[in-house]
Amino acid sequence: MTAVAAASIRPMQSRPIRTVAVIMAMRAEARPLLDEIRANERELPETAGPLPFQWYDARVGGLNAVVAVNGADRRHGVDGIGTQAAALNAYVTMLHRRPDLVISAGTAGGWADHGTQIGDVFVSRDRVVFHDRRIQLPGFDQYGVGSYPVVDASHLARSLRLKQGIVTTGNSLDESHDDRQAIAASGASVKDMEAASIAWVAELLGVPMLAIKAITDLVDHPTATAEQFVANLDHASRRLCDTLVQVLEFCEDRTIADLAHDRSSGAK
Amino acid sequence: MTAVAAASIRPMQSRPIRTVAVIMAMRAEARPLLDEIRANERELPETAGPLPFQWYDARVGGLNAVVAVNGADRRHGVDGIGTQAAALNAYVTMLHRRPDLVISAGTAGGWADHGTQIGDVFVSRDRVVFHDRRIQLPGFDQYGVGSYPVVDASHLARSLRLKQGIVTTGNSLDESHDDRQAIAASGASVKDMEAASIAWVAELLGVPMLAIKAITDLVDHPTATAEQFVANLDHASRRLCDTLVQVLEFCEDRTIADLAHDRSSGAK
Repeated sequence: MTAVAAASIRPMQSRPIRTVAVIMAMRAEARPLLDEIRANERELPETAGPLPFQWYDARVGGLNAVVAVNGADRRHGVDGIGTQAAALNAYVTMLHRRPDLVISAGTAGGWADHGTQIGDVFVSRDRVVFHDRRIQLPGFDQYGVGSYPVVDASHLARSLRLKQGIVTTGNSLDESHDDRQAIAASGASVKDMEAASIAWVAELLGVPMLAIKAITDLVDHPTATAEQFVANLDHASRRLCDTLVQVLEFCEDRTIADLAHDRSSGAK
Repeated sequence: MTAVAAASIRPMQSRPIRTVAVIMAMRAEARPLLDEIRANERELPETAGPLPFQWYDARVGGLNAVVAVNGADRRHGVDGIGTQAAALNAYVTMLHRRPDLVISAGTAGGWADHGTQIGDVFVSRDRVVFHDRRIQLPGFDQYGVGSYPVVDASHLARSLRLKQGIVTTGNSLDESHDDRQAIAASGASVKDMEAASIAWVAELLGVPMLAIKAITDLVDHPTATAEQFVANLDHASRRLCDTLVQVLEFCEDRTIADLAHDRSSGAK
């Protein structure tokens, strides 16, 4: 896996990061960031068809930020969370906006057992996986897990004092017995509903990808996930916003390789 | 739901069906059909980016058939089954090929309890739903289920002696305890891994949609689903092929409305 990942991402490693696309599922998750960076809504191109996604543009220092929000589902009115909307929004955004880096950003679950607390912000480490694609056929079992590589952002994480962990994705807010087994096998410490789907599309289109996730709920806490999520969404979205602004500022004048290693150039 | 469905599909009801897109996940499912209708592979447009999907064109009588196969996953080599690839393939196919009707075609699970046998072919009825998107938040619970409308194809089903049922979609080959509860609640009788995702995109783009599914395995049979699937894939794909050719022939000189009701015009 590592060889494939390295080969597909290598050409991008040394290119300066000029445009970053931030893919977010929920309007409430995105609102603090959109206000903070004074983003302006921008129409999707007509050629993309009638899609519910909302794009916002901003300049953060010398960087172009594109925030792409899944937006309201047309049939049900609520935000288009989950992997299907994430895949399509990520595809259209990367195809039309050609970012140098794509970030799956949002709220997520964590585990008290791993020392995680509400409001902690994680940067993805190593790979993102699926935990709800159980396909018991040779080859398909690994395809189900996915294991899409993410950018090595260990220098970024150290500099901004962020935790790092493997992010695991599924289409449910809760964790079923089967999900729990899959998550134990992958070693994930962050549970979301979009990252692996975005990583799949990012790999197809050759765009370096990472995830930034703020913890709204502890999967191993006795209180139901939905209840924790509602109680902590505002707090986590504010923490997410603060971190995303720092991440965007950190990317300026850096390359993808610079997110892994300190250049020690003194330039920044 | 019915009112929304009727409103979004009504403008297409009376238009003659000239182009049908058939979205399929597995190359083995598609092969008999591609051979039978002598389909020619056609490159995806460069503007769609480097996607693994494979398009095939054929004429079936006076009808244009576009068969869009998810194709081999670039990382894992196996067919890109499941909802993420289905959503993206369906989007790109509908956007660029502008079909009058999109069909989610493939193999699926059924239930002996419902009188279903291996090799039975179903046409979707009423709606397609998800069974693995459990989101216990107000409004999101219904979003999770999806409930995307399908074309009323009762005349088609009667004419070709096909069964009809609600199709339910999830990203796993097996059926977990939670899946079972969701499926019992929706009343579905066909279990696949793509239809609801394709229906979601079809509704966004305003393209009438139905599913044609051939049964490879009985969910309530003691033999593991994967074992049944492997044993019956060829047989079911052959039955699927025969039915799809009949469906395409049936669509010629008909409108979407004609799939529901016998025109009794004597023209066909």
